[in-house]
Amino acid sequence: MATNTPILNQAANFLANLEYEKLPVDVTESAKRAILDYIGVSIPGSQQPVAQNLFAWAEKRNWGKTATVIGRKIKMAPENAALINAASGHALDFDDTSWSTIGHPTTVIFPAILSLAEEYNCTGKQTLLAYIAGLEVAHKIADLMMPEASENGWHTTGIFYTLGTAAAACQLLQLAKEQSALCMALALSKSSGIRSNFGTQAKPYHAGMSAKAGLEAVSLTLSGINSSPTALEDEDGFIQCYASSELAKIVKNMAKPVLFGSPWDITHRGYAFKKYPNCSGNHPACDAILEWLNKNPTPIEDIASIHCGVSLLGPKELVCDQPKTPTEARFSIQFSLACALTYGKITLSEFTDEIILSPHIQELMSRITMGVDQDLARLGFIGTAPVKIWITKVSGEEIYLENNLAHGNPEKPFSDNEFNAKFLSCCHELITREQAELLLKDIYQLDKVKDIKKITNQLCF
Amino acid sequence: MATNTPILNQAANFLANLEYEKLPVDVTESAKRAILDYIGVSIPGSQQPVAQNLFAWAEKRNWGKTATVIGRKIKMAPENAALINAASGHALDFDDTSWSTIGHPTTVIFPAILSLAEEYNCTGKQTLLAYIAGLEVAHKIADLMMPEASENGWHTTGIFYTLGTAAAACQLLQLAKEQSALCMALALSKSSGIRSNFGTQAKPYHAGMSAKAGLEAVSLTLSGINSSPTALEDEDGFIQCYASSELAKIVKNMAKPVLFGSPWDITHRGYAFKKYPNCSGNHPACDAILEWLNKNPTPIEDIASIHCGVSLLGPKELVCDQPKTPTEARFSIQFSLACALTYGKITLSEFTDEIILSPHIQELMSRITMGVDQDLARLGFIGTAPVKIWITKVSGEEIYLENNLAHGNPEKPFSDNEFNAKFLSCCHELITREQAELLLKDIYQLDKVKDIKKITNQLCF
Repeated sequence: MATNTPILNQAANFLANLEYEKLPVDVTESAKRAILDYIGVSIPGSQQPVAQNLFAWAEKRNWGKTATVIGRKIKMAPENAALINAASGHALDFDDTSWSTIGHPTTVIFPAILSLAEEYNCTGKQTLLAYIAGLEVAHKIADLMMPEASENGWHTTGIFYTLGTAAAACQLLQLAKEQSALCMALALSKSSGIRSNFGTQAKPYHAGMSAKAGLEAVSLTLSGINSSPTALEDEDGFIQCYASSELAKIVKNMAKPVLFGSPWDITHRGYAFKKYPNCSGNHPACDAILEWLNKNPTPIEDIASIHCGVSLLGPKELVCDQPKTPTEARFSIQFSLACALTYGKITLSEFTDEIILSPHIQELMSRITMGVDQDLARLGFIGTAPVKIWITKVSGEEIYLENNLAHGNPEKPFSDNEFNAKFLSCCHELITREQAELLLKDIYQLDKVKDIKKITNQLCF
Repeated sequence: MATNTPILNQAANFLANLEYEKLPVDVTESAKRAILDYIGVSIPGSQQPVAQNLFAWAEKRNWGKTATVIGRKIKMAPENAALINAASGHALDFDDTSWSTIGHPTTVIFPAILSLAEEYNCTGKQTLLAYIAGLEVAHKIADLMMPEASENGWHTTGIFYTLGTAAAACQLLQLAKEQSALCMALALSKSSGIRSNFGTQAKPYHAGMSAKAGLEAVSLTLSGINSSPTALEDEDGFIQCYASSELAKIVKNMAKPVLFGSPWDITHRGYAFKKYPNCSGNHPACDAILEWLNKNPTPIEDIASIHCGVSLLGPKELVCDQPKTPTEARFSIQFSLACALTYGKITLSEFTDEIILSPHIQELMSRITMGVDQDLARLGFIGTAPVKIWITKVSGEEIYLENNLAHGNPEKPFSDNEFNAKFLSCCHELITREQAELLLKDIYQLDKVKDIKKITNQLCF
């Protein structure tokens, strides 16, 4: 392919030539686990206020009945179901993270494709292939623009996965190459989301907005609204607006084509999965303390104080010293460690007003401090959140723990048992253990599912 | 008001305190003329492919019947009617331009407010006030970010009028101040549109997308989706993402509040209206040649050649030397002048395939040249498109014309007769002269209209 082929045309060629049977097994297996993780977290997420609010909004604006809304018995139009299901998956901030975007891929692309797949009676294999296609397009294009796009202030989930959703939908619907390129170009004009709206329902809404916008870019293009296939790298295009004009020029003059699928981002860079339902900045500390407690069972009354040394990102992310609500508790290393010390686990069950406000937990949190560690500060704003922990016992004994990387990162991947345990714990209060295990089994065999409704039917409850 | 009040809270205070009776008369009269101009151009625009395509798209996605779609007999949900009517107003690139945004205000804000006003049985006065409110908020905030936002590559119509529409809707619905600020903050996360998609249906679609997004920001907020009222000037906020972090810091540290309504942008800086249905870069040349022809009727066969000296923006905007289609002809100074010489006018009637492809026009265009003039180049990328024209007659006689500013700009405003003539000429093929004159009269008396349906009923045809 000539390197002067516009990148969206290159992406459209990639989409047109994809075949499930030619995908590496590690790619399809990794994708299934990301889908498993998404479906797991979207189940409790579907009961969160943001999902309830979007459901109420969409009920008034509904125009179809073909797509399942997770955790509801009412079907909706695909674009509305995608909106709600995407926000549900991000509502607890418990979903996967791509290191290519520092954003959340599966909670946008998968629910959008699931809705379309249900409408078009697709197989599990078709659904899985489209999801993998959209991921890959979004991430190879994000690679050209990161970290600038994130540094500029964008919510990368909002800006890259509108494109990823459009690409996935083009693949699922098997559009002609020219039309796929135009769908993706229109998606570029529909990408938004600013990070200053974080800490509110707008954050998970951005995931839903992006899923809906990606599907709308496709339906609008199919209705005849055209656009420019060079809108990615051209002057005044997506790269210039969201990253910089310097980057846009470099990309426009690249001597080699974009290598979609070689290697595959999902296995090459991989995704981080969350073991705990709180800000990922807590995770290395949570791993370290739970591992230590496991080996050294210690009564709380033996602990005088705990100090956590964190990197520069610590005080930016973990902003709640004495949280009073579940939302605040997710951004509190004090709550995370108090919870670990008290319950020996950090799961959805502990994020309740009752537990957070209990005098015992509030008192315990006051003995836990956090501060930037000078050594870790030298690493800059490192997203992996390395931590050093000093535990001082009442006896005067001091214990030192450290952890550079949380379990669930690509370098320390979840085992299948861990994926399963997270999934079952997410489902726990909403469906029976038997239902959850059946769903789990079907997702692991997604490529064997002849009709995607076999999956979606299990999500209406 | 303390200057540390977030700007969206300042805007919300402004909206809450507005009263029609306290508006200066020149503001309300100017707003009526902008609305007249919008309704005029949206009437033929409603028959353009982009409006037809969006209508077909929205028909499948419709969920209400309260809002008029201009030029159609079917009513739709307000958000869908706003989408189509906004794109209709911009479809011919014949609508007003704000010098505060270099974008198109009325075609986004007015149709959105018209749809809501119809749903809520509002008066003409309420509709007019809400439109004025939204304009003012969008333009005072754009003032903080221009020209950077435009230079970065954004379609300013898409990014500033999502906010303007949300502000106008908050005023119309008389929301509490806190809720208005949140609606506007969510609108900031829904703003998009890149200029590299220009020259396609995406451009008028951006106007529609923006109108719909502004209304959705309001309905989503009313459904409980919250956001951050400091999302405009805060770190990673709207100003940082769409302009620059330097500007965001300056705005955050401003020593004085934003002066909404003092003075009013619509009368202080004013809007440019288009006399001809083509790119505004043609307009000074069109004015000059028509004025000269009027005073010096000249047979075409007497003209050997015409050369237009333009500023640096000329070759960027007027890219079609020998157009073959109406869309191309709108970006051709050759067609504009050939049309003027042949027909003595440049109206919608001349933008037909038949006229553009006629051997006579094609031959005449080949005698007309355009080039950057060294003196005009020194003015930079000046949006007013100054021109120098050299007409060489077959006799050898040379005539020199120049024009620095088109008629319809704030400094050379349309007379009421010109507003009326443009309106009637826009309506000409679609409604009767009698109907057009009644509509015109009612728009001039918009503040006296007791039910906005008196206007909208005239737009269903």
